[in-house]
Amino acid sequence: MTGYASMDTLQLQQELSALMQVYEDYQKMKLALNMARGRPDKEQMDLAQGLLSCLTPEDMILADGSDVRNYGFLEGIPEARQLIADLMGHTPAEVLICGSSSLNIMYDVIAHAFTHGIDGCTPWAKLDNVKFLCPVPGYDRHFGISEHFGCEMIAIPMNAEGPDMDLVEQYVNNDPSVKGLWSIPKYSNPSGITYSDEVVRRFAQLKPAAKDFRIFWDNAYIIHDLYDHHDVLLNLLEECKKYGSEDMVYELMSTSKVSFAGAGIAAIASSESNIKKLAKQFGVQTIGWNKVNMLSHVKFFKNKDGVLEHMKKHAALLRPKFAAVLDILNAEVSDIATWHNPNGGYFISFNAMEGCAKRIVQLCKEAGVVLTGAGATYPYGKDPQDKNIRIAPTSVTIDELKQAATLFCLCVKIATVEKMLEK
Amino acid sequence: MTGYASMDTLQLQQELSALMQVYEDYQKMKLALNMARGRPDKEQMDLAQGLLSCLTPEDMILADGSDVRNYGFLEGIPEARQLIADLMGHTPAEVLICGSSSLNIMYDVIAHAFTHGIDGCTPWAKLDNVKFLCPVPGYDRHFGISEHFGCEMIAIPMNAEGPDMDLVEQYVNNDPSVKGLWSIPKYSNPSGITYSDEVVRRFAQLKPAAKDFRIFWDNAYIIHDLYDHHDVLLNLLEECKKYGSEDMVYELMSTSKVSFAGAGIAAIASSESNIKKLAKQFGVQTIGWNKVNMLSHVKFFKNKDGVLEHMKKHAALLRPKFAAVLDILNAEVSDIATWHNPNGGYFISFNAMEGCAKRIVQLCKEAGVVLTGAGATYPYGKDPQDKNIRIAPTSVTIDELKQAATLFCLCVKIATVEKMLEK
Repeated sequence: MTGYASMDTLQLQQELSALMQVYEDYQKMKLALNMARGRPDKEQMDLAQGLLSCLTPEDMILADGSDVRNYGFLEGIPEARQLIADLMGHTPAEVLICGSSSLNIMYDVIAHAFTHGIDGCTPWAKLDNVKFLCPVPGYDRHFGISEHFGCEMIAIPMNAEGPDMDLVEQYVNNDPSVKGLWSIPKYSNPSGITYSDEVVRRFAQLKPAAKDFRIFWDNAYIIHDLYDHHDVLLNLLEECKKYGSEDMVYELMSTSKVSFAGAGIAAIASSESNIKKLAKQFGVQTIGWNKVNMLSHVKFFKNKDGVLEHMKKHAALLRPKFAAVLDILNAEVSDIATWHNPNGGYFISFNAMEGCAKRIVQLCKEAGVVLTGAGATYPYGKDPQDKNIRIAPTSVTIDELKQAATLFCLCVKIATVEKMLEK
Repeated sequence: MTGYASMDTLQLQQELSALMQVYEDYQKMKLALNMARGRPDKEQMDLAQGLLSCLTPEDMILADGSDVRNYGFLEGIPEARQLIADLMGHTPAEVLICGSSSLNIMYDVIAHAFTHGIDGCTPWAKLDNVKFLCPVPGYDRHFGISEHFGCEMIAIPMNAEGPDMDLVEQYVNNDPSVKGLWSIPKYSNPSGITYSDEVVRRFAQLKPAAKDFRIFWDNAYIIHDLYDHHDVLLNLLEECKKYGSEDMVYELMSTSKVSFAGAGIAAIASSESNIKKLAKQFGVQTIGWNKVNMLSHVKFFKNKDGVLEHMKKHAALLRPKFAAVLDILNAEVSDIATWHNPNGGYFISFNAMEGCAKRIVQLCKEAGVVLTGAGATYPYGKDPQDKNIRIAPTSVTIDELKQAATLFCLCVKIATVEKMLEK
């Protein structure tokens, strides 16, 4: 608690001066901490070290008699499709296992839509305008793909239940140039919010004006719970089947934060019909993805239960990190900022006083703590209110986190007082 | 030797009747052999089994202190760039290590040229016509990418030195709609020919009418020698530097036929300037490729010499297979067909009498031996002379190969006699 709201100008000036003295002491410490990216920490990756030695020569021959080290199985090996399908709540025929990056799958799907179109519709490259709906705050790399292809990005505000569905329906059901929507429906990056059942049902009941509209349902944190009392996300693909709208969904996941970052396995799920089409188009670009890596994941994790048990070990490592940051935020700045206490995922989405985010990030940087750039969580990197900051507490030790979070709060206070004095 | 050339019609008819009797006996054997795709055999992949257990926990931290299991190193880990650069004869800065598929890299580069253009030139998707030069016979998956993007494919005849360079120069230097050229310069797929020094020098001296013309120098068989007296390919990138034309080259390789098919590491090499641009564009689609797999390759193979020693073991396994097929071809059909005895690579390119290839493939298929479809080695799958067949002897046992090659020769004879009788 800062009590700033009740201070007069003189008190605020004195406070600023006191804060700046502490800040200068921090600068002398020459910290070098990073809370910018959602990276797993070394001890998390150590949990999966067995992956690198679990395969034996006997494992090389798959159930169907084929050799996993040879070409084939464009859709991924059946064993991996089963594992991932179980995790996602789908059938193996609704799942395609690709390389190590779900981002790359999304990119490929969108690039193909631009060059060849979806389902016989006009290639997006030939349209004057392609719009993507972007719930905000959101994931900068999603927005990066849209921007790369010159899409018009439309920010959709998030609330405690998910994206503003009135606005989503209005755009999707009426504007045929709206071709895509980005979403991280569980433990959203960065807000940590999980879409409510009602929001998921409204997604399933969309009646897109564009036949080639697609929801990019990036279920990146599908099993990334921090607590036993975790969020539960309704299965969008199953909901869609009630309305015959399942072709509208591309659901993604990867094991980048289950096994190794960038060296796991990544998957796309959709209707069986879509999966067949995707396999066909992927067949032009590759003979097949790394099946040996798929097999080592299957062997190491065994099955869905094996993966979920493994994720409990991740949670045990991550819980104290989130707690360390949240405790300090609560103690220091609860009356001048807001945030959501997430039940999973990799981020804390911090909302400062309007017009303060850039200044906070700059102050942190100049004292040796790197945060995701202010604005990065918005299309074109521009947060219109300049208030959202994504905090990534996972890849720093708890001692360092406490130091970084304390400095962060100091910078929040400085920026807030400065802003109040401007008025 | 068949002696068909000196037979009269009656003798040919008697010969056909005799051949068909033998063929019918083959059909009763219900063979199921495959000489269609260039797949390594189990015993070849066994050679690299150590890859799957060579990494220890201590290896996880790279020389620069970063953890190979975490995000980062979009260009590939320095250790892998060094290894591949040494193999290709380039510097690490001229090499980018991507996923497991060089085909996928080529696809990505071309897809990007279509959506975004190369070096500020008009995106190919906005051009009326994009032409690719296709030395024939060539690799069906190359042609598949061109066809997928609607390119006009222009067949360039191959001779014993490589592609007809008069024709290549005429197209590339005069026609600005010629944007690409496919090539497998060493042990070409399927002809087994290695481009001569003179051909490589003429490539380096091309003066493309299109600034965004690119040579796809798919060095797929760069180290895939069968004999100690192997072919030597001139280093195109180095030659280009003499003329300042190195931006024109995208060179590819992968370890799919060194370690595991589809689970190795793949790389693109080009000018340093191009590599920087490629890394930037790849940075939109992925955070990075599978670095753990890169590291296991570096650890297992150690260095260039380690890889070359390993390839000698492959050669020892493959030599008798090529010999088995070539011996039978020589004994049976040397006066009614032609082929090149390759010093490396994965294929024997067989040229039958004109108008016979489809019939031979069909006869083989109906007797249980699957070959690459006739015509597959030509753009659009159409061999104008219907005479080229790609034989892939690598993934069949020697006993099976002898059986398959004998049947193949029988089918060649049948088709040839049938054709002679038509005339």
